[in-house]
Amino acid sequence: MIKPTLKKLKEPVKKEMELFQQEFEKGIRSDVSLINTITQYILSQKSKKIRPVLLMLCAKLCGEPNELSYISASLVEILHTATLVHDDIVDEAETRRGLPSVKAIWKNKVAVLFGDYLFSKSLDGMIKLRNFDALELLSKTSELLSSGEILQIEKSFSDGMSEEIYYKMIWAKTASLFATGCKLGAITVNAAPEFCDSLYQYGKYLGMAFQIRDDLFDYNGSHSSIGKPIGRDIKENMITLPLIYTLNTLPRSDSRKLKKDLKERHSKKEVEEINALVKETGGVDYALNKLHELSRSAVDQLSVFPDSVIKQSLIGFTVYNEKRSN
Amino acid sequence: MIKPTLKKLKEPVKKEMELFQQEFEKGIRSDVSLINTITQYILSQKSKKIRPVLLMLCAKLCGEPNELSYISASLVEILHTATLVHDDIVDEAETRRGLPSVKAIWKNKVAVLFGDYLFSKSLDGMIKLRNFDALELLSKTSELLSSGEILQIEKSFSDGMSEEIYYKMIWAKTASLFATGCKLGAITVNAAPEFCDSLYQYGKYLGMAFQIRDDLFDYNGSHSSIGKPIGRDIKENMITLPLIYTLNTLPRSDSRKLKKDLKERHSKKEVEEINALVKETGGVDYALNKLHELSRSAVDQLSVFPDSVIKQSLIGFTVYNEKRSN
Repeated sequence: MIKPTLKKLKEPVKKEMELFQQEFEKGIRSDVSLINTITQYILSQKSKKIRPVLLMLCAKLCGEPNELSYISASLVEILHTATLVHDDIVDEAETRRGLPSVKAIWKNKVAVLFGDYLFSKSLDGMIKLRNFDALELLSKTSELLSSGEILQIEKSFSDGMSEEIYYKMIWAKTASLFATGCKLGAITVNAAPEFCDSLYQYGKYLGMAFQIRDDLFDYNGSHSSIGKPIGRDIKENMITLPLIYTLNTLPRSDSRKLKKDLKERHSKKEVEEINALVKETGGVDYALNKLHELSRSAVDQLSVFPDSVIKQSLIGFTVYNEKRSN
Repeated sequence: MIKPTLKKLKEPVKKEMELFQQEFEKGIRSDVSLINTITQYILSQKSKKIRPVLLMLCAKLCGEPNELSYISASLVEILHTATLVHDDIVDEAETRRGLPSVKAIWKNKVAVLFGDYLFSKSLDGMIKLRNFDALELLSKTSELLSSGEILQIEKSFSDGMSEEIYYKMIWAKTASLFATGCKLGAITVNAAPEFCDSLYQYGKYLGMAFQIRDDLFDYNGSHSSIGKPIGRDIKENMITLPLIYTLNTLPRSDSRKLKKDLKERHSKKEVEEINALVKETGGVDYALNKLHELSRSAVDQLSVFPDSVIKQSLIGFTVYNEKRSN
C-alpha cells in the first residue's frame, strides 16, 4: 500500500471538519482578553486534529454527522489541547508544533490556568451533549489522561516498569481518548451498541499504536521533524517499550547495571550508548512488531462494517501511523 | 457579638461532615499508588473545609441532607483542592496549610497532573448527581475559577485594574464557588427556587468578603498565621482593593508614579513603603468597610429564613470571616 497522507485521509470528512472548526473556536472563546490572545495563538499553530477527524469518520461510517458530532469533536480536541498545554509544563518543553509553547511565552503560571480553563470548557461542551453515557465515558477518560501520566512518573522513580504496566499506561494517557473519540462519533449518530464497541476497540488499538510510534521517535526520529530532542525519554528516565524489551532481554546483572545507569547518568554520550544498545538487542524491532500487531488488531475491528471510502480512511490511519515521521 | 470559632459554627452539621469526609476520601481514591500517596498527604493537612460546611448548613437550613448533599460537598471540596494544588504552582508557593506544598515535595510536574486528576474526579462526582442544572452550575463555576485568575494576571501586566474589575475577579476566582456550594446544598434537598437563589446570593457576598479578608492579610497579617509572606501581592504586582483605593485617591501624578514603581521596584524596603502608604491614605480602612458591607449583604439574604441554630451559624460565618487572622 502506498503511504497515505493525512490530507487524503481527511478528505471524506472535509466539510464536516469545517463545521467542527467553527464549533471548536466558539467552544474556547472567553471575555477575558488574555485568554483570547492565547487561544488565537493556539489556533495559529498547525495541529493534525487526528482525534476530531477520527470521531467524524466514525460518525460518518455509522450515519450522518450532526450538531452533537461537531460538539463532541470540539470537546475532544479542547480536552486534548488542555493536556498538551499542561504537558509542556510537565515536560519543560519550550516548543510545541514548531512554535514556542504556551508555557515558554506566558510562563508556567498562565499555562497552568489556561489548561484549567480549557478543561472547564470541555466540561461545558460535555454537558451540552445532554447524554449521561457520553458524560461518563468522557469523565473516565479525563481521569485516565492524568492518572496515566502520573503512573509513568511513578514508574520512572522506581524499578517497577514492565511491559504490562507500559500498555496500561499508554492506554490511559493516549489510547483512551482515541477510543472515546471514536465511540462518541458512533454514539452521536445513534449507532447500534456493537458498532459503538467495535469503534471503541479500533480507537484503543490505534491509539496504543500511536503512542508506541511516538515513543519510537526517541530512538530513531530526528529533532526537527518531531519537535523534541532524541533521547529525551532516556534522559528523563521514561522507560518505554524498546527499552523495556532490552531490559528483559539482557542478562540479569547487565540489566541491573543498565537500570542503575538510567537513574544516574545523563550525559549525551551515555544516552547515545543506551540508544545503540536498545537497537542492537532488538528493542526497536520488538516495538515495531508490536506496533504492527496493534495496527492489525485495529483494522480487524472494522470487519463488521461493509467496505466504503470512510472505512478505507480508517484503515489508512493505521498505515499512516506506521509510516509517519512526526 | 463574641468572636465565633469555626468549631462552634460547624457544630450543627458535625455528623453530616463525617459522612461528607467519607465521601470525600472515597471520591479521590485511585489505583495508582503515587496518587494515593499524595492524597494521603493532603488528607493529613489541616483544612478548614469552609465550602463543604457551608453547603451542608444550607442543605440543613432547607431540609434533610442526603447522599446527594454529601456527594456535592465532596466534589466542591475536591474542586477547591485541585485549584489549591495548581495555585501553589502559579504562586510558586513552597508551603500550604503550614506544611510543604504538593509542588514543593513532588515538583511542578506531578502537581500539574495531580491537580488535573482532582479536576477529573470532581467531574466524576458531578455526573453522579444526575442533575443537569447542578452540572451547568458547576461547569460555569469551574470556568470562572481559572478565568478569574487569568484576569488577575492580565491586569497585573497592564494598568487596567479598577475597583469594578477587582469585584469581577474576586467573584470569579473565589465567590463563585462559595455561591455554587451554598446553592447546591439547597438544590440537593429540593428547596424552592427562591431559597436556592437567596443562598446563592448569600454565598456570593460571603465569598467576596472572604477574598477581601484574604487580600487584606497582605497589608496587616503576620507570616506565621497566614502561611504566606506579607507584601507578597505587592511584590507580584497583584493589585487588590486597598491598593486600588490608594491609586484612585492619590493625585494623578503620584498615582502614575506609584503604578510605575509597582512594576519596577521590588525590594523589601520599597514594599514596606507602599504598604505604609496604603494604610496612610485609607486603603486598608476602605477595604475593611467594603468587607463589612458585603457581610451585611450576605446576612440580608438570609431574611427569608426563620431563625434557627443553622441560620445563626450562617450569620456567624460572616462574623468569623471579619475577625479571622488566617
